[in-house]
Amino acid sequence: MPRKTTVAQKNTIARISKKKHFQHLPWSSIEKEHLSPLLDRHFVVGNQAMLARVLLKKGCVVPEHSHPNEQITLIVEGALKFWIDGKVIVVKAGEVLVIPPDMPHKAEALDDTVDFDVFCPPRADWINKTDRYLRIK
Amino acid sequence: MPRKTTVAQKNTIARISKKKHFQHLPWSSIEKEHLSPLLDRHFVVGNQAMLARVLLKKGCVVPEHSHPNEQITLIVEGALKFWIDGKVIVVKAGEVLVIPPDMPHKAEALDDTVDFDVFCPPRADWINKTDRYLRIK
Repeated sequence: MPRKTTVAQKNTIARISKKKHFQHLPWSSIEKEHLSPLLDRHFVVGNQAMLARVLLKKGCVVPEHSHPNEQITLIVEGALKFWIDGKVIVVKAGEVLVIPPDMPHKAEALDDTVDFDVFCPPRADWINKTDRYLRIK
Repeated sequence: MPRKTTVAQKNTIARISKKKHFQHLPWSSIEKEHLSPLLDRHFVVGNQAMLARVLLKKGCVVPEHSHPNEQITLIVEGALKFWIDGKVIVVKAGEVLVIPPDMPHKAEALDDTVDFDVFCPPRADWINKTDRYLRIK
C-alpha cells in the first residue's frame, strides 16, 4: 500500500524540484529543526547548492562523518574545534573552512556558535532527514 | 610567443585546480580587491563552489548583469535593494536571497553592507578578473 505523502515530504519535494524563481527569506521565517539539546539548524536549498544556518551551543559535538558534498563553513559568532585530515584546528568568528568532498571531520563548539554551511550539491540526507548522526533524542 | 605567466595567474591556476586539502583562512588574511571607490571583495574558491565576502559602501550600484552560476546572497550587515525578475525587493541583515542561474539582477547598497555570496560553480570571471561590469577605475 503506498504511504501517504506528509506535508513535510511535500515541502521537501517542492524544495528539491528545479527552481526557476528567486527565493527571498528572513532566517527568522525558516523553521528551525531542533536536532539535539545543543544543536538547531535551518537552511535554504537552491538547484546546485544549499546554505544552512547552524546554531551550536557550547559543548555540542558533531561526530566524525564525511559526505560527497563540498562544504564551506563560515563562522560568524563563537568557535568550532575541528578534527580533520589528521590535524586539530580551531575555526573562529571571521574565519572560513573549505572541506573537500569525502574528507572525514568531527567538530566541537568551544562557545555558543553561529555557523553558516554551504554544501554543493545540497545535502540529500539533511533534506530527507536521514542524517541520524546529528540527531539525539 | 607564449605570454609569461604572472604570479597572479599562477595563484589563480593553483586556486582552480582540484583541491584535495582543506583550506582554513581568516578573512583578514585574504587580500581584498578594490573594485571601485564603493566596492571591495575577497573570496575563497573550492572545487564546486566559491564564497565571497563583499563590502559595499552606501550608494554602491552593481549594474544589471546575469551569470550561469547559481547565487546565494547572505546579508549580515546593512541592506541591498535588488531589481530582479520584474520586482524590487530589499534584502536586509538576517535575510537570504537565492538567485537562479541566468536571472538578471541589479543591486544598490542602501547602507554600508557586508554581504556573503555563494556561487556554484565558482565564477570564472571573478577568478580571472574579467568582471568589467563591477570595476570602475
